[in-house]
Amino acid sequence: MSPTQFNLAVKEIRDDRQHGASELARRALAILAEAARTLPVADVRRLRERLAELTVELATTRPSMAPLRNLLYRWRDGLAAIDAGMELALARVAAAEQAEALIAASRQAVADCAAQAAELLGSRRTVMTHSFSSTVVEACRLLKDRELRMIVTEARPLEEGRKLAERLAAWSVPTTYITDAQMGLFVAQVDAVLIGADSVLADGAVINKAGSYLLALAARDRGVPFYVCCESFKWRGADEPMPDLEEMAASELDVPDWPMVTVRNVYFDLTPTRLVSAWITETGVRWPAAEP
Amino acid sequence: MSPTQFNLAVKEIRDDRQHGASELARRALAILAEAARTLPVADVRRLRERLAELTVELATTRPSMAPLRNLLYRWRDGLAAIDAGMELALARVAAAEQAEALIAASRQAVADCAAQAAELLGSRRTVMTHSFSSTVVEACRLLKDRELRMIVTEARPLEEGRKLAERLAAWSVPTTYITDAQMGLFVAQVDAVLIGADSVLADGAVINKAGSYLLALAARDRGVPFYVCCESFKWRGADEPMPDLEEMAASELDVPDWPMVTVRNVYFDLTPTRLVSAWITETGVRWPAAEP
Repeated sequence: MSPTQFNLAVKEIRDDRQHGASELARRALAILAEAARTLPVADVRRLRERLAELTVELATTRPSMAPLRNLLYRWRDGLAAIDAGMELALARVAAAEQAEALIAASRQAVADCAAQAAELLGSRRTVMTHSFSSTVVEACRLLKDRELRMIVTEARPLEEGRKLAERLAAWSVPTTYITDAQMGLFVAQVDAVLIGADSVLADGAVINKAGSYLLALAARDRGVPFYVCCESFKWRGADEPMPDLEEMAASELDVPDWPMVTVRNVYFDLTPTRLVSAWITETGVRWPAAEP
Repeated sequence: MSPTQFNLAVKEIRDDRQHGASELARRALAILAEAARTLPVADVRRLRERLAELTVELATTRPSMAPLRNLLYRWRDGLAAIDAGMELALARVAAAEQAEALIAASRQAVADCAAQAAELLGSRRTVMTHSFSSTVVEACRLLKDRELRMIVTEARPLEEGRKLAERLAAWSVPTTYITDAQMGLFVAQVDAVLIGADSVLADGAVINKAGSYLLALAARDRGVPFYVCCESFKWRGADEPMPDLEEMAASELDVPDWPMVTVRNVYFDLTPTRLVSAWITETGVRWPAAEP
């Protein structure tokens, strides 16, 4: 893997609007596995150094996405266990295999998380979600033959809701498709809201697609439970500051270039802890601590 | 005016997505003035009867829009004062002039209402709105040289926010344009939210473009005042039931015809009284009653 190829791969992850945080973290690990196997270096010490540098570069491409940071830094920390005296070819294999093991662990965590969500929700439920989350999709797959009904949002500007509606249609799940602005009208009709997350802060506040905070407010106002479903790789440590909320190109809103008008396209918003009814991870359901 | 011409005019009002409730009510009055002048009838009694029938037909075309009902029924009630013994030509003129007087009163009420809003807001304010309201536009015009800044929403599906952004750009008002889903992110940056209304229920609950309820929730959560600005013709009586919230064609969302997926396009939502900081009408500002 040449520096040019690596830079191209970084750019692809930075510009990606189609995949969620976990999926991009696994792609980044796959890139690093490839780099471990093919980087032009002379010895193991240099391999570890270069891989550590590339890890930092990849981990900081998408600040709103915790798994990128969590999975990649876990891998980097694992590199330290590769003995500098090891044969280079073997060290390459060991580093790549560690990345692949983390990819598998991430996949398993998402699957377990969706299973926990499906168990919590149960049969014959009407569930609302916002935007597109792979974990929520997997939970829907597990419930598709258990009389699940879904209400899904468009999710402007790129309308990931279309992809979700298409998937649910293919599974014959009765689905209602609405604009983001109609969330407040329809939330009263559901048994629960289930969303994914790009990151969860140490206090439980949730970074997810813009509009999630509005949906959480409406759910609370209508007495509907608001569940956040994501694997623990998405949780940030208490020492990690709140990340910048990523902003994408204004051109995605596809409006004219009016003078004096600034078009904003912030992709994520922050739903405060107090609006979350429960957090679902691969190990189970975490309910809020009782009021003191 | 032939029945065919009248039916065409009714259909235009029913299908109109470009104009607000007050403007459509004035158009309906103009249609009735024309009908008063030209309906083929033999005497004054028959003229009054036919006009009363046409009034009911027009008044019920847009159930979410209170002014249509309020202005038209006020006009119909005025017809009773036209003496059956009056010469037909004079009766026609009297009925048409009453409609034109109500049109003028409606225009004046909107202008006065906007003036009240501008006075309440004052200079150097950043104000957020949702969708397009003629009254809010007029308030912006009054404040455009007083360091007003605006944050406006796209307002899916037809994106009336574009028309508003264009208008504000022409007035050189610094404006931020966002998707509806970003309302929760940006409301914390403003001094106040100002929206129009299609109707206000007797208890003060507000029927306005879908998404207004979400914005009201976010404003309350962030401690930002949420003002509703509309003339008293938009208020419903205590005896009037909550109207159906109008739903428009699903095709406006422009998505494929997926099996099992129902596309919903409800245009209006209901913001409960408890989320409104104050109602601005042509006569002044009405604050909520103090808690008992």
